[in-house]
Amino acid sequence: MVHTSPLDQAGTGDAGGMNIYVCEAAQNMAAMGVQVDIFTRRTNTEVADVVEVAPGVRVIQLNVGPVSGVTKEQLPKLIPDLSAAFKDALVNTRYDIIHSHYWISGKVAMPVAKDLNIPLVHTMHTMARVKNLNLAEGETPEPMIRVQGETQVVAAADALIANTDAEAASLVSLYEACPDNVLVVSPGVNLKVFTPGGGRAAAREVVGLDKDSHIISFVGRIQPHKGPEVLIRAIAELVSHSPHLRAKLITNIIGGASGANQSEVERLKELTTWLGIDDVVRFAPPVPREELPQWYRASDLVCVPSYSESFGLVALEAQACGTPVVATAVGGLRTAVADGISGVLVDGHDPRAWSSVLARLLLEPQRRVLLSMGAIEHASHFGWDATSRGTLDIYDRVLTARAEQAKNIG
Amino acid sequence: MVHTSPLDQAGTGDAGGMNIYVCEAAQNMAAMGVQVDIFTRRTNTEVADVVEVAPGVRVIQLNVGPVSGVTKEQLPKLIPDLSAAFKDALVNTRYDIIHSHYWISGKVAMPVAKDLNIPLVHTMHTMARVKNLNLAEGETPEPMIRVQGETQVVAAADALIANTDAEAASLVSLYEACPDNVLVVSPGVNLKVFTPGGGRAAAREVVGLDKDSHIISFVGRIQPHKGPEVLIRAIAELVSHSPHLRAKLITNIIGGASGANQSEVERLKELTTWLGIDDVVRFAPPVPREELPQWYRASDLVCVPSYSESFGLVALEAQACGTPVVATAVGGLRTAVADGISGVLVDGHDPRAWSSVLARLLLEPQRRVLLSMGAIEHASHFGWDATSRGTLDIYDRVLTARAEQAKNIG
Repeated sequence: MVHTSPLDQAGTGDAGGMNIYVCEAAQNMAAMGVQVDIFTRRTNTEVADVVEVAPGVRVIQLNVGPVSGVTKEQLPKLIPDLSAAFKDALVNTRYDIIHSHYWISGKVAMPVAKDLNIPLVHTMHTMARVKNLNLAEGETPEPMIRVQGETQVVAAADALIANTDAEAASLVSLYEACPDNVLVVSPGVNLKVFTPGGGRAAAREVVGLDKDSHIISFVGRIQPHKGPEVLIRAIAELVSHSPHLRAKLITNIIGGASGANQSEVERLKELTTWLGIDDVVRFAPPVPREELPQWYRASDLVCVPSYSESFGLVALEAQACGTPVVATAVGGLRTAVADGISGVLVDGHDPRAWSSVLARLLLEPQRRVLLSMGAIEHASHFGWDATSRGTLDIYDRVLTARAEQAKNIG
Repeated sequence: MVHTSPLDQAGTGDAGGMNIYVCEAAQNMAAMGVQVDIFTRRTNTEVADVVEVAPGVRVIQLNVGPVSGVTKEQLPKLIPDLSAAFKDALVNTRYDIIHSHYWISGKVAMPVAKDLNIPLVHTMHTMARVKNLNLAEGETPEPMIRVQGETQVVAAADALIANTDAEAASLVSLYEACPDNVLVVSPGVNLKVFTPGGGRAAAREVVGLDKDSHIISFVGRIQPHKGPEVLIRAIAELVSHSPHLRAKLITNIIGGASGANQSEVERLKELTTWLGIDDVVRFAPPVPREELPQWYRASDLVCVPSYSESFGLVALEAQACGTPVVATAVGGLRTAVADGISGVLVDGHDPRAWSSVLARLLLEPQRRVLLSMGAIEHASHFGWDATSRGTLDIYDRVLTARAEQAKNIG
C-alpha cells in the first residue's frame, strides 16, 4: 500500500525516492518468488485497474476520491474511504503480509490489517517529528494530524522497517517505538542501471556539456526541504570568492515543482537572477530515469543539501555512477555518503561553509578521483537484492511470531 | 607551541587527543628529516628544561607562572609572559615555521611569528563557537575571550589546518577564515600500537573480564562535553527494556577528571547508584597508553557520545583494534566513524535512541563481526605518516608563498 502511484515520474509532484524504492523492492522480491500487489489510489484515468509492471508485480488502482487535483495535504480526508476500498480489494485474495509505506498508507492499512488479521509491516520513509526538527527557513511544519497518525501506525505495526540505524533510533526516541519491533534494512540502488558507464567525457558529450567545465548538479524535487536554495547561495558565494572559477562553472538544478508548492521553481529562478549568477545556474525539468545516469556521470559533484532525509537515494545513485556527493550531515545521508571517502558531509546549511567545501573539491582534481573510486565502492554495498532479502527476512520473522502467538493462544 | 605538556598522561586533566596528536605528528615528521622543537609551559618541577623525547624531537619548557595549580581557564592571563618567553627561546635558533595548537598557543605564537617574521601555521583542535553551539545540559559556555582569541588567530595565521572538511567549513562559516588559507589534514592513529592483536578473548583474559560478557566501554576525560552521562543513562534504559541482558553486561567508564571540574566523576558515580545500575557500570582511572589497546580489544563496543569533537581519536584507536564504535553524529566523529560500516552514528544524545542502537548491536553478533572488519579497514586509512606528510606539504606551501611575496616586494 503506497499513497503515490509507482507509475508516476519521480522528481516531480509527490513522487520521489519512495516510489522508486517500492518498485525496485517489489520487483526484486518477485524475482525471489514472492507475488507482490501494490495498491495505490487512482490518479490517472488512462491506466487500467490492474497493471502488471513486471513478472509477479501488479499495481492495483483504488478508485477513491477525484482522480486529479488531490494534493498530499488533502489525502488524509480520504483515508476512511481508502481503507474501505482497500479492504474490499483484499477479501478475495489471501495475503500473508500488508506492507505500508509512508504514514497515510499506514493509516489506510491499519484497520484493514486488524480486521482481516493480517500482519502489518510499515516503512516510514520520512517522519514529521524528524522533519519539523530540521525545517528550512520559512518552511511550514508538518501538521499534528500527521504526527498523531504516525504515532498510531508505530503502535499498531507488527514491525517497523527503518532505512538506517539513525532512523531506527528516531522511531524509538521520538515515537516511543518498542526497540524490538524496529528493524533496519538499507535501501538500494539499481547497480545495473547506475554505473560509471563510459565515464565523464562521454557522458558530457551525450548531455551536451563542455568537457572542461566544472559541473555541479542537484537532482530532486524543488522544495525548500531538499535545500536547492542552499546550493544556489553557495554558488553565489563561490563565484564571489573565487571569480576565476566562474567562466568554467555550470550548476544544474534538475527537478520539478513539488506538491502544492508550484511557485518554488520560479522563486529560485528569481533568486538566481537577483544574486547575479544566471550565467552559472541552469534549471532543467526532471530527467527520465534512463537518462539520469548520464547526468550523474557528467557531473564533477552532486549536491544533496536536504534539511532531513530518511535515506537520500540520489546520493547513492550518483555515487554508483562514480560521482562524489556533497551532502548535509543529517539522518540517512550520513549512511548514504561515507564522509571523506565517497564524498563530503557538511554540517548545516550555511552557504559559506558549502561554498568552501565545493571550492576545495573543484580545485583538487586528484582528491575527486579518490572520492570517485570511493563512491563506486561505497555504492556497491547497497544493492536492491540485499534490501529485498532483508525485507523478506522481516516478513518471515513477523509471520513466525504470529504463528507462535496463535499456538500459545490455541 | 602547545599549552599542555606532551609529557603528561592523556585522559586526565587537560591532556587528551591533542597531546597525542602533537607527539605522534612530531615524531613522524622528525623521521622524515625535520627537526621539531615542542615548546610548552613548565607544569612539572622534575622535568629538565629540554627533553629529547625521540630522535629529532625535543620538548622545551618555558618557565612562566606557577608550576602547578594553573587551570586552563587561568592560562589566558599568562599569554603575554608566555609570548615573551617564547620569543626569547626562539631568537638563537632559525626556525622555518611556527606551528601552534589550540587557541592559547595561537595567541602566544602570533606576536612572536610577526616580530621574528616566521610563518605561522595553526591547528584549532577545538573551537569555542562549535562547542557552544553543542553544549551538554548544564555545561558552561566557553567565554567570549576565547572566541575573540580564536578569531584573531584565524586572521593572523598563514595557514589553518583543519582535521576534517566539516571543521574547515566551520572555520569559514563561523570564523570568517579565508577558504584559501584553510587546509585539511586528517589526524592519525598509531597503527603499530593499535591493532586487533590476539583478539577479544585473549584481551579479556589480560584485563580480567569474562569472555561471555557484553562489554561496552567509554574512554576519555570525564567531563559533560564528552557525554559519559549519555552512555550511563542509555545503559539504564537498556537494562530496563531488556532485563535479560543485565547479567552479562559490563560498562567501563575509563578516564580521569578533567580540568577544573574534579567532582564530575563523583557526580556520575552517584547518578549510577541512583539509577540502580551499580552492578553493570564500572569506573576506572585512565589507563596507560600501552595497556589501552587491550581494553579496546576486550570491548564489544566503544562509545563516543561527545557533544562536539573536532576529530575523536578514541574512535579511531578503538576501530584500529577491531572494535566497532557507536558515536554521536557530530563534527569529526562523522569522519572518524564510517556510519554502518565501521560503527554506528547516533543523532543527538537521547538515552532511548542510544539504548536502542546498543541493544540492537549487542543482539546481532554477526553484524558486529562485519562492523569489526569494517572498523579495521576504515582505521587503516588514517596513519600518522599521512598526517605528517600532509602537514609538511602545508609548511612547504606556506614557505613558498612567503618566498614569492618577498620576491615581489624585492
